[in-house]
Amino acid sequence: MSDLSQSRPEEESAVRAVVENWAAAVRRKDVVAILANHSQDFLMFDVPPPFSSRGIDEYRGTWDLFYSAATDPVVFDIEKMEIAAGSDVAFVAAFMRCRHIDRGIPTDLDFRLTVGLRKIAGQWAIMHEHHSVPATQ
Amino acid sequence: MSDLSQSRPEEESAVRAVVENWAAAVRRKDVVAILANHSQDFLMFDVPPPFSSRGIDEYRGTWDLFYSAATDPVVFDIEKMEIAAGSDVAFVAAFMRCRHIDRGIPTDLDFRLTVGLRKIAGQWAIMHEHHSVPATQ
Repeated sequence: MSDLSQSRPEEESAVRAVVENWAAAVRRKDVVAILANHSQDFLMFDVPPPFSSRGIDEYRGTWDLFYSAATDPVVFDIEKMEIAAGSDVAFVAAFMRCRHIDRGIPTDLDFRLTVGLRKIAGQWAIMHEHHSVPATQ
Repeated sequence: MSDLSQSRPEEESAVRAVVENWAAAVRRKDVVAILANHSQDFLMFDVPPPFSSRGIDEYRGTWDLFYSAATDPVVFDIEKMEIAAGSDVAFVAAFMRCRHIDRGIPTDLDFRLTVGLRKIAGQWAIMHEHHSVPATQ
């Protein structure tokens, strides 16, 4: 992952833009833009339950849940991102931070994010996201 | 992900073999085989803390922790696996089950797994694993 010289530079830039634009859309609560580059059969592994979600409608629901506990303004920052981009498949591993209201108190939450993408008809599409925190027990 | 017809069939088969062989190695506690296809700068997001681990030595440590609580024989099953395989980068999303001893009682644990791979010198190498369960609060 850290040997970025093995990535194809133009594909790495395109993948980085898709992920950065997605995170920016989350911050401005722009649900249309959040969903703009996701495949119909998208598979989500989120921080809170359920265990998994499939497709755009269920994915939209995960953001309703996120915003129900998020601070305003929204914090959803990419602290560090590593990209492996090939000609037609890519994945991203990222260290992320958001902020939510926990028992009335704004609280930072660091989480891990992996994104899987595929290039379809010349455009990078997000096929899979995996968001998590380490288990507490 | 589910549109597997878009994967390159020969690469998809090779990636599937790497992940299945890795899971089989976990079941027989064969640490050399577990590590056989991992890159030196491998990045791990595991179920228990720490937040992340980097490199083969830290990765080996995550298996010491796993075996300290695993049942014998080890359960580490791929329930379902979806593969997106390109010519030089691939990722896998899987529904997994293991079994650990929780307060003296063998307990099944369903978890989510994402694996990122890169083809290096003609061989698929695991660059990244992300194992998690949904957060409980």
